[in-house]
Order: sequence, then structure tokens, then C-alpha cells
Amino acid sequence: MKYKQLVENIRSKRSFLCVGLDSDIDIIPPFLKKYADPVFEFNRLIIDTTAPYTIAFKPNVAFYESRGAEGWRSLELTTGYIRKNHPDIFIIADAKRGDIGHTAKKYAEAFFKRLEFDAVTVAPYMGFDSVLPFLDYRDKWVILLALTSNQGAEDFQLLQTGKSERLFETVLKTGSTWGSKENLMFVAAATRANMLVVVRDHVPEHFLLVPGVGAQGGSLDDVFKYGKNADCGLIVNLSRTIIYGDNTERFNEAAGQKAREIQQQMEALLKQEFLL
Amino acid sequence: MKYKQLVENIRSKRSFLCVGLDSDIDIIPPFLKKYADPVFEFNRLIIDTTAPYTIAFKPNVAFYESRGAEGWRSLELTTGYIRKNHPDIFIIADAKRGDIGHTAKKYAEAFFKRLEFDAVTVAPYMGFDSVLPFLDYRDKWVILLALTSNQGAEDFQLLQTGKSERLFETVLKTGSTWGSKENLMFVAAATRANMLVVVRDHVPEHFLLVPGVGAQGGSLDDVFKYGKNADCGLIVNLSRTIIYGDNTERFNEAAGQKAREIQQQMEALLKQEFLL
Repeated sequence: MKYKQLVENIRSKRSFLCVGLDSDIDIIPPFLKKYADPVFEFNRLIIDTTAPYTIAFKPNVAFYESRGAEGWRSLELTTGYIRKNHPDIFIIADAKRGDIGHTAKKYAEAFFKRLEFDAVTVAPYMGFDSVLPFLDYRDKWVILLALTSNQGAEDFQLLQTGKSERLFETVLKTGSTWGSKENLMFVAAATRANMLVVVRDHVPEHFLLVPGVGAQGGSLDDVFKYGKNADCGLIVNLSRTIIYGDNTERFNEAAGQKAREIQQQMEALLKQEFLL
Repeated sequence: MKYKQLVENIRSKRSFLCVGLDSDIDIIPPFLKKYADPVFEFNRLIIDTTAPYTIAFKPNVAFYESRGAEGWRSLELTTGYIRKNHPDIFIIADAKRGDIGHTAKKYAEAFFKRLEFDAVTVAPYMGFDSVLPFLDYRDKWVILLALTSNQGAEDFQLLQTGKSERLFETVLKTGSTWGSKENLMFVAAATRANMLVVVRDHVPEHFLLVPGVGAQGGSLDDVFKYGKNADCGLIVNLSRTIIYGDNTERFNEAAGQKAREIQQQMEALLKQEFLL
């Protein structure tokens, strides 16, 4: 997907919501167990009810990988289903991969050739040659970890790496030279919303993928206030808050309602700033 | 596997060799295409001829993931085969995962419950809570990235994070508080062998997993000279040099011979230092 298309989708759907498919076979409604692939069935139903309010879906690869080949098959079915039935929606592999060049090339094949993802999250620790192989794909994206939502982010991401610079800032500065706003985004967490001002100093034009609103306690208003740019420039992910709101046969309607509620908050914010 | 067992295996096999199973369906000998699972067949044959000279096998997960569910199945067959036929051999998932706690828990399930790996490589960027879920498993190991073999290592790993400390050193210092030499190792590359002295200053007792000997140009003698400790403390990985030496029906014998050659170099080094 191209940058322009993504911005148009935000305008037409009046939303910058990403629904995280952290689909856990031990948590999904029990009645789904009767299906051959309960996780795919869960995803399919959630996808259809939330798609009208959503610009992106983000399967969390760990939740599939924990079920081995079978889980990987659910992931293949899920991305195939989104691509076929909701072709305008951006699909993110939340995989946090990162390895030397010839291995990164294989990960890029996994997510961009074998599966039909638009983007993959990548860890920066191993530097430029662990990221570039993903950027060789036209209209595909790298979403580089900068500032994450967990407590452990403080261990290394906030270390001083220069006179007035912390590691996550160096990652933003150096990382942003590897691609452009057309193929590179950054992960910046809602749980540290005031830090989004610092993030925007380094990467004013790039999209940010923002986790941490919802179950992790981040505020949507603050994320928008500190993180938006002239094209909105935000993809805000919610997973558990949307997909696990109800445990009955009507779980998908509940998910759709929750997604709609958040879309309406987002629409109000976009209007406030004359972005609609 | 326990630390003590690993050290005993090094002594009894007179080797600290790990064979990297970067098994690429596009590179393996063409005659294998006639098998239902050519990659598993390739691995099985390599495993049997190299096992006498080897203390560890290290499948590189990207090479399996790039073939989707089918590739993941080859990985399941491979770990199952090693566990059954060579139960004394340490199996490392070279996966370089790293994510927030509830996701890291799922990755740990993937590699330690669903599959029968002894260890998994983990990226440090997200800090302690991305690593601890792996350490909850008894007799399983985390191998934390510290100093990698690629050029991109210079982007962040060599940044100054303190008066006389670089990021990889902070990772060693902080990371080593999360576990012990009984469940935590570090990746430190052969391509920067003189830096192994610095690594040893911070973690004298932990095992190091050393990539970069062979195709990437690192020297085994230097790795041993700068990286060994009183228990040897090294697992040196070679992948392409061993597994892709021959492209005929005798590729597995060639791999066995190459592994034996390296084992003999290792035996000589161990004897020199009275470690045998």
C-alpha cells in the first residue's frame, strides 16, 4: 500500500484504528471449538464486524506461532481472508524480527511473499543491514521499534547515547535514514504519550504505530494531542479491549460496537484539528 | 539441559561446535526434491553425519518461516528427530524474538512447549519483561543478543551509553542480572574476536554463543583465545561452511567430514589449555 492510500483511508473511514488480532485459543469464546480452525473462525468474525471502523489489522505472530504449523496455517488463512474481503485494509505482521542480512531476507519472504502482509514490525538492535532487506519490497513497510509500551523499555531505550539524546532517539534519527515516510514507520507507545513530542521532533512526517491505548492504560486524547501530524500520521492499535469484550456467540457484534465507539472518538479528534 | 551436562558434553565429544541448520530449499541438493519434505530430509541426513562431532544444532527459524506452515512443519520434524535420535544434543532456536510480557510468554510456549528446543535467541531492545517469560522454564535457556557479527552492529550496539561503556556492555551487565550462568547465555560474534575480552570482563562465567566463524570470516583460534573460560564457555556456530560444502547425493558425508575437521581443531585447542 502507498502512503497516499493510507492517508485517504483514514479520511474516508474517519478512523486511525488498528485492531490487534492477539487471538489466543485459550481465551476465545468456547463455542468456537467446534470449528476446524477456531482461531481463524474467531478472526474472520471479528474482521467482518470491525472492518468498517478500522484502517488496519495487526495479527500478533506469537499467538499463532505458539500453535506451531497449525497456528501458522490460521495466520495464512487470516491474511488471505482480509486481503480478499477487505482489500483496502493495511495488514501488519507484529513479529518484531531482526537478524543479519541473509536471514532478514528470509523473514521478508515469509511476511511479504508467502503471506500478504503490508508491513512488519522490526527490532533495531542489529542495525541497518537487518532492516534493509524488508525495504526492497515495493509498497511494503517496515515498522521499526523505537519506544515500546512496557516497563522494560527503560532498561535500554531510555539510556543516554549522546549529550541530550537517548537510545530511542538515536534509533529514530539513524533509522529514518534507511527509508522514507513512504516505506518506514516507527513504534511509539501511548503509555509514554508526552514522549511523543520528542518522537515528532525527530520524525515529523513518518507514521507512528501506537500500542498501549486500552488494556495498557494509554490515553487516546494524549496520543492524538502529542503524536499527530498534518496527515494524522497515527495508527493506534487496540487488541484485548476490542476482541475480548464478550465471550458469547455475540462476541463479534460486541467487538464491532467497541470498534465503532473508538472510531467515533477518533472522528471527533480528527474534526477538532480540521483533519477531516 | 543443565549447565553441568553441557560442559560434560563438551568434554566427552571434545568439541564445542554447533551446526547451524540454515536450510534453504533453494540451495539444498536438487535430488532431495523427490522427498515429501526435502528440507527435513536434508536436515535428517546432516544431523546424523555431524552429530558425533557436535554439541548443538541451531535451526535458523527464518529459513523455515519463509515456507509458511509447511516450513514450520519441517522445523517440528527436525527438532523431534534430534530429540529422539540424539537426546544429548542441545537444540537452539535462532529466532531473535523479543516482545512485551504476554507476547513473550507465547513465544516461549512456541519454542519450549510446542517444540522441544533447549534455548532460544532473544533480542534485548525491549528489556527485562521481554526476557523473563522464557526464563520461567526449568532447564531451558535464553541466549541474549549482545554483540552481533554483522556490519549493522555498529549502528547501536557500539554507542556509548556511559563514561566508558557501550550499549552491548550495558546489555551484558543488565542482562546478566535477569538469570544466571545456568539459564542465560549471550551472543558475541567471532568477527569482533578482540572484543570478546571486553565481553568476558562483564560475564566471565556465562556461555557465549559465537556466530561469524566460517563464511563470515571470524577465526576459531582467536575466538578461543579471547573468549574461553575455565569450562570452555563457548558454543561456536558454523552453518553454510558445514551444510553447503557439497551439492551431490554425498552432501551429508561431506558435512560430516567438515564437522570432524573442525572438531579436531577444537580438540587441539581444548588440550592446549588443559581443558581436556
